[in-house]
Amino acid sequence: MQQTNPAAVGDYLRKLQQEIVAAVEAADGGTCVRDAWQKEPGEALQGSGLTCILEGGALFERAGCGFSQVRGPRLPPSATQNRPELAGAPFEAMGVSLVFHPRNPYVPIVHMNVRMLAALPEGKDPVCWFGGGMDLTPCYGFEDDAVHFHTVCRDALAPFGDDKYPRFKTWCDEYFFLKHRNEQRGIGGIFFDDFAEGGFDNGFALLRSVGNAFLPAYLPIIERRRAMPWGERERAFQLYRRGRYVEFNLVWDRGTHFGLQSGGRTESILLSMPPLASWAYQQQPEPGSPEAALYSDFIVRRDWL
Amino acid sequence: MQQTNPAAVGDYLRKLQQEIVAAVEAADGGTCVRDAWQKEPGEALQGSGLTCILEGGALFERAGCGFSQVRGPRLPPSATQNRPELAGAPFEAMGVSLVFHPRNPYVPIVHMNVRMLAALPEGKDPVCWFGGGMDLTPCYGFEDDAVHFHTVCRDALAPFGDDKYPRFKTWCDEYFFLKHRNEQRGIGGIFFDDFAEGGFDNGFALLRSVGNAFLPAYLPIIERRRAMPWGERERAFQLYRRGRYVEFNLVWDRGTHFGLQSGGRTESILLSMPPLASWAYQQQPEPGSPEAALYSDFIVRRDWL
Repeated sequence: MQQTNPAAVGDYLRKLQQEIVAAVEAADGGTCVRDAWQKEPGEALQGSGLTCILEGGALFERAGCGFSQVRGPRLPPSATQNRPELAGAPFEAMGVSLVFHPRNPYVPIVHMNVRMLAALPEGKDPVCWFGGGMDLTPCYGFEDDAVHFHTVCRDALAPFGDDKYPRFKTWCDEYFFLKHRNEQRGIGGIFFDDFAEGGFDNGFALLRSVGNAFLPAYLPIIERRRAMPWGERERAFQLYRRGRYVEFNLVWDRGTHFGLQSGGRTESILLSMPPLASWAYQQQPEPGSPEAALYSDFIVRRDWL
Repeated sequence: MQQTNPAAVGDYLRKLQQEIVAAVEAADGGTCVRDAWQKEPGEALQGSGLTCILEGGALFERAGCGFSQVRGPRLPPSATQNRPELAGAPFEAMGVSLVFHPRNPYVPIVHMNVRMLAALPEGKDPVCWFGGGMDLTPCYGFEDDAVHFHTVCRDALAPFGDDKYPRFKTWCDEYFFLKHRNEQRGIGGIFFDDFAEGGFDNGFALLRSVGNAFLPAYLPIIERRRAMPWGERERAFQLYRRGRYVEFNLVWDRGTHFGLQSGGRTESILLSMPPLASWAYQQQPEPGSPEAALYSDFIVRRDWL
């Protein structure tokens, strides 16, 4: 069995967060709040984190990027369904998670997450799994942006086998789906969970490759779109579409829903919420409009490459 | 056993909806959209409804009031835990549900629901249970309003036994609680479910008493508050507090959450969503402010009478 090194993953994740936060500040011109937190003694999970968030910026209306590292006395049964030998073992979970809500409706919302779960059975080596991904949610669709985003995702996974991008792309489409709207959340990306293929070194390398691909996947899209003029119509549609983002995260996203129900740190979990969102009854886009094209051509399952 | 009369309940509920919609239009000056809908043949639940909603009014920024009546081939196991003899029986469910989001931050959000579930075991009489309640969610708290609302609720329940108001008031506090915020949703009201005490006639009478109490509980509060001047500060706090309403409904409200997950009519379920809502990181009200008083004095469990 390969040696595992959870501490190295923690070091990588902390550094990744700092790089991303620096890039957010450079692109926006504003400054992130950096809020270090620690779980109170006596809470079910012990651990700490660093929540970074820029609100009310010129580019980002709300951009949150959190790191957290928690330990628990025993893995929940859902985590060990396929690994009975680890049932009830102590565990450690760590990750970086971000959602950026740009101000300009032509700049897409983005989400990225990279995480590791380590089971720490007494007297044995830790067993680690990796998970994460990234996905893009435009209000106004641009083929070039979708192709660029998926290309960077595919290239990040290429060293780990040709099967990875198609599998993780499909997994992303399946996960980021609003069943109650019969809509995809956005144009997708990649998603993976419980990844342990090839052992710790391979999993950690894949995690780094995905984490490092985030800025190259997203920054060029910002630069293409941030100067596009927009008005009330685009703003109204953006606020309405952000309502869908709220619906997905609170109703369907397992991390958010169960995090809130099980005593996670609310303000860190809800970094993903938009700064402002709207709802309206039976809103239908005008046929032939760019808003209609979003529904018909972009937030559907589609091969972008 | 008393005879049951589900059709009479349907007649009452349809009439109640019309009265409430007429009162909304009279108070606002605007007109509700009336949208009759029917489940497609082949869907799991069969049924129909009438969704009424006023959006963008002078008084109500969004006020939705829906009636629905659905039939299903078999009761879900959760409905018959305490009544094994009815397991898997066909059923009918009907109800009126409303949420009003006023424009003026001094006018509270209100929610009311009255519903009946009838099990229709083959060759036997139907068995009916009633549920519902109403609760008030101010952004700015006023003791007079809370006392008035609770007084009308108590008086509506008084004919059915002195135990009803205290029980249903406590039930409401327990149900409309945001565990992840450690906050009550609002100043409470009454909530009940699975009510069959005293048979069909008593249950239906209690349902009518609650339904009929809604306008007397809420309209006087509107009239007291609607002319109060407000500005950017109050608007910002209102939008922020509406975010909590979204969180409760999508994360904790069983009707909303399971309705969306199980194929209910999305646009009718989400009548409860606010027209506009905001999120911000670690927002804390200024000590001694009316916003701070909401948290310390109003959205806590408290005896109002």
